[in-house]
Amino acid sequence: MEVTRQNFKEVLPEVCSAVQEADFISIDGEFTGISDGPSVSALTNGLDTPEERYTKLRKHSMNFLLFQFGVCTFRYDQNQSTYITKAFNFYIFPKPFSRTSPDIKFICQSSSIDFLASQGFDFNKVFRSGIPYLTQEEESQLREQYEERRGQINGAGPVSYTPTSGTGSCKVPEDQREFIRTVEQKVEALLKNSDQTLDLEPCTGFQRKLIYQTLNSKYPKGLHVETLETEKKERFIQISKVDEEERRRREQQKQQREQEELNDAVGFSRVIRAISKSGKLVVGHNMLLDVMHTIHQFCGPLPEELDDFKEVAMSVFPRLLDTKLMASTQPFKEIISNTSLAELHKQLRENPFRSPTTECPEGLRSYDTSTEQLHEAGYDAFITGLCFISMANYLGSFLSPPKSHISARSKLLEPFYNKLFLMRVIDIPYLNMSGPDLQPKRDHVLYVTFPKEWKTSDLYQLFSAFGNIQVSWIDDTSAFVCLSQTEQVQIAMNTSRYAESYRIQTYAEYLQSRQKSTHSSRRWTDDGWDASYSTSGSSRLQAVKRSISPSLEEQNHNADSSWTHYSSVKKMKTDGSCSQSYAEVAGSCDWPRLQPDEGGTSVSPVQEEVEPEESSANQNQGKRSRRHKKRKSDASETTPPALFDVPQVW
Amino acid sequence: MEVTRQNFKEVLPEVCSAVQEADFISIDGEFTGISDGPSVSALTNGLDTPEERYTKLRKHSMNFLLFQFGVCTFRYDQNQSTYITKAFNFYIFPKPFSRTSPDIKFICQSSSIDFLASQGFDFNKVFRSGIPYLTQEEESQLREQYEERRGQINGAGPVSYTPTSGTGSCKVPEDQREFIRTVEQKVEALLKNSDQTLDLEPCTGFQRKLIYQTLNSKYPKGLHVETLETEKKERFIQISKVDEEERRRREQQKQQREQEELNDAVGFSRVIRAISKSGKLVVGHNMLLDVMHTIHQFCGPLPEELDDFKEVAMSVFPRLLDTKLMASTQPFKEIISNTSLAELHKQLRENPFRSPTTECPEGLRSYDTSTEQLHEAGYDAFITGLCFISMANYLGSFLSPPKSHISARSKLLEPFYNKLFLMRVIDIPYLNMSGPDLQPKRDHVLYVTFPKEWKTSDLYQLFSAFGNIQVSWIDDTSAFVCLSQTEQVQIAMNTSRYAESYRIQTYAEYLQSRQKSTHSSRRWTDDGWDASYSTSGSSRLQAVKRSISPSLEEQNHNADSSWTHYSSVKKMKTDGSCSQSYAEVAGSCDWPRLQPDEGGTSVSPVQEEVEPEESSANQNQGKRSRRHKKRKSDASETTPPALFDVPQVW
Repeated sequence: MEVTRQNFKEVLPEVCSAVQEADFISIDGEFTGISDGPSVSALTNGLDTPEERYTKLRKHSMNFLLFQFGVCTFRYDQNQSTYITKAFNFYIFPKPFSRTSPDIKFICQSSSIDFLASQGFDFNKVFRSGIPYLTQEEESQLREQYEERRGQINGAGPVSYTPTSGTGSCKVPEDQREFIRTVEQKVEALLKNSDQTLDLEPCTGFQRKLIYQTLNSKYPKGLHVETLETEKKERFIQISKVDEEERRRREQQKQQREQEELNDAVGFSRVIRAISKSGKLVVGHNMLLDVMHTIHQFCGPLPEELDDFKEVAMSVFPRLLDTKLMASTQPFKEIISNTSLAELHKQLRENPFRSPTTECPEGLRSYDTSTEQLHEAGYDAFITGLCFISMANYLGSFLSPPKSHISARSKLLEPFYNKLFLMRVIDIPYLNMSGPDLQPKRDHVLYVTFPKEWKTSDLYQLFSAFGNIQVSWIDDTSAFVCLSQTEQVQIAMNTSRYAESYRIQTYAEYLQSRQKSTHSSRRWTDDGWDASYSTSGSSRLQAVKRSISPSLEEQNHNADSSWTHYSSVKKMKTDGSCSQSYAEVAGSCDWPRLQPDEGGTSVSPVQEEVEPEESSANQNQGKRSRRHKKRKSDASETTPPALFDVPQVW
Repeated sequence: MEVTRQNFKEVLPEVCSAVQEADFISIDGEFTGISDGPSVSALTNGLDTPEERYTKLRKHSMNFLLFQFGVCTFRYDQNQSTYITKAFNFYIFPKPFSRTSPDIKFICQSSSIDFLASQGFDFNKVFRSGIPYLTQEEESQLREQYEERRGQINGAGPVSYTPTSGTGSCKVPEDQREFIRTVEQKVEALLKNSDQTLDLEPCTGFQRKLIYQTLNSKYPKGLHVETLETEKKERFIQISKVDEEERRRREQQKQQREQEELNDAVGFSRVIRAISKSGKLVVGHNMLLDVMHTIHQFCGPLPEELDDFKEVAMSVFPRLLDTKLMASTQPFKEIISNTSLAELHKQLRENPFRSPTTECPEGLRSYDTSTEQLHEAGYDAFITGLCFISMANYLGSFLSPPKSHISARSKLLEPFYNKLFLMRVIDIPYLNMSGPDLQPKRDHVLYVTFPKEWKTSDLYQLFSAFGNIQVSWIDDTSAFVCLSQTEQVQIAMNTSRYAESYRIQTYAEYLQSRQKSTHSSRRWTDDGWDASYSTSGSSRLQAVKRSISPSLEEQNHNADSSWTHYSSVKKMKTDGSCSQSYAEVAGSCDWPRLQPDEGGTSVSPVQEEVEPEESSANQNQGKRSRRHKKRKSDASETTPPALFDVPQVW
């Protein structure tokens, strides 16, 4: 069902209870863009290390707005052998709820916007009716401000107009004295006549401040003073004669109203907190960007270091599963040729897979997979969940006896937990959220620098003696070149010794020189990552972690029993009942096939393989345009598995 | 009438002829935001110099998108004594027209978007149907790319896959040989059988490149090779058997198609070029940002220096008139209390003004001023034109005998030409586009620095002995303070000598130290204004000027006669027939009244006077929130006119 600012409050309890009851939850986000810096192909270099990839996404993808968020809850009904699904499609927009709330700026990438427009995305609904949100820090700040102001009005709290000399409240400036005198006269008249209220003329905030201050000290009792707005949104003060009880009652009413306004402002963040608190398995398709955006937008700033990000992410979502990674791994990678969400969903409806039966409770609009609504976040979340179920159930066929239903809590799924698909990295299939990342040997990789006129064909020419090579462009004047045999590296190095136009380094040398330059240049990078940030980095991280901690504790508490169960199951693995444990099958997984990919969270065709010939908008792109990209058809031949020594972590 | 991508091509000739026939043209733009850096109040400091203001707007306002552009043409019908108006409301969006065109990123400010949403702005229409645009430079680049590619395909131009060794066209890489062989076999078969065409399987851009290259060299005649797209947007190559004549015909068709695509991509920029070429008077309300955005988005990058900007702007729009400046100037400022567009329009319909009669040709939707559509660019442009006419005609009442109709070419309007309203600058009413700017004495101004805890009240306290003061905040720890009498400056300086918590400089001292620090720090500013940019600045400017020059020449040619006429009229001024020349009345103009202002181009309430008490979102805003703003009611008392020595430029 569609959720906007208009029905959010009403729907929220339903969302929360659906989350509570769910066996698992699938999510999907739509963004206003992908990269505000490098082209998408440079953003996703095939030989990025996980740290490099995270750093680039954090720097170049987070200024876009996550403006549609899909949540679909799945609960298995044992009796009916069916999944009860509840899909919610949230429109998100940081409407400043008052003049005091943050005025968010976000970037739009026209290709992404155009792509969503072509998919029928409703921008009016987002911008007119989007649900607001606040991070925990923003919420705390607002609460403090409210309390400070309330203190001022009551005369109880710190007086904000304290002059440095410390002589109490603000002196009425000369040019305001006449104004204040007039107000006092009007109030005197009010107290004497039979009127109950007096509406002053609209005036400035400073004048209102002076009025509050004057009346508070002169008439500590008997008057209620309140700021109201005219139809034209001009603010004016209304003064009412009230007894002390009535005055208190009104103050309380006002406080309640403010509390409610604040809760409204927290808005969609409450959904994320509910999901986090539940500790449930959260499923997404190609979900790294979704997770990053969710934390950045609704929880708090992303940490600078990948390891810190993992820690924060795991405290928000303790169990994640990425269907793109799952589909790219044994035993699925043998059967599934295209892991884009739409294609995956299509293939999983055919043999040897089976579509799960689902049911949607009355009153909730259910998605119909026969009329595709791809790239609507709620729909994408829904079919992501279906894909997960189909693949999970397929794993049951490896059991003896085979099982047709595999629960979201099955240990068969354990190998896929907390491993997020890494788009287009050649030799590292996933980001390992709950441990160290894979460190493939890159002995056969060369780092080549050359004049900016060079094109992919020049590199092919240069290495033509070595048979198949694979080129990953870094920027205009450098690229990684993967040779098919590690022994060729030395030959290439020797040959290049006398070259003048280009230069070759081994991957190890490249890493070393890069680390050096990172250390010396960090202070001068253009995005504020200076030394001072680094030192404050850990305290910022602490703040995020702390802000998430209340729910975290609870979730750990909730999850404790199941996790104990899981770990004991894990220990039992070797003497379990599976004749052919999938965990063992999965152990032989190496890396996903490379293939054109639309990505589950793709908002635009730019995430797809850019076709060389045509993409040459400006100078930089102009030359990149003619690069030779790794092709799907010969991916497995080009990259002999034996070359990569991928540690088997499961 | 509404103009979108769908009807743009059809409407364009009508727009161009309306512009050609017009007596004057009014414009208005709607943007996705105002400031991506400082708060709007810091962006428009009351004591900005024109250079500072321009620099800030250029740096912090240009990353937003101008996404609705209103153009209204006005032609006076002597016989009917009525204005024929044609209003066009263009939706603008940089849809990438192909993979080769620029992928524009733009910022949205949520308060601005929210404000436009509340005014019923149609975001779907913008993003789904917005008209694209290109600057002249982008257009040239695209044309070059097209020609280069055409050259490649014809085998006539430079071969793009030239290896550095220079041995001709791209070598087919080993892993592609099999693929190319298969294609060759298929073509051989085609040539032998009776089929006319052969559709190859979709393949990568590099493979297509290889196919073109191979077939071009192997079958220089008899084949037409073309890239087409499947319904799924996959690109494939179609090969047809054709004789030489047919082949040439097809090539020509393709070229024509490409030319048309390119013209479509230039899109809305053609409207701006038509207006520029016409040399007509262009009227706007508070139009500085409109002019800056128009040039930035549709012509070329804004120059770094204000003087260069003036030159570029005058070459694009040789005659500008700002109705906000006009309404803020004698004789209007005495009668008009609020110069926001809506209020101005309202007041100009009442005595002593008269609404002009207008007529809209059939077929064009006319705006009805009784049902306001404020903040729709077309409507705002329309009523801006009405305001201009009412004010112009009012000037006619000063003539003897009085005239009820004043033409847009009347010399009475000359004093208002090319002076753009400067929002909220205390003592400089306008940016003088065709000459040096006013340089008011700022002898009574102090530059005060202090601890960041200070609030406006602290400054009031500090200067309480000096009577009325006026505070303009610069940032958290500095502000300008205007004293009411210049003589007080020395007393303040003497008193401050022993102060520890704050520091006072005269305005002259401030300017001096600022110039020094600008010179030494420019190299290190964060927005890329390093020395290298400065040196290349002039050549960039040249590029813009050059790119505009074709139309400029023509427009100068068109405008020549009228301008000669104007200058001769100007020379005649003293012995003209006016008993009381308005030019003389206007000569006594000083500066506009300060007043709450929504601005003609305002896209959001943030442009309005921010009310102190409530605006305290984050740390910075939190303290600024309690600042005392200059109030409308006592503006004239606070700033005795005698204090400012404004040179009379007309």
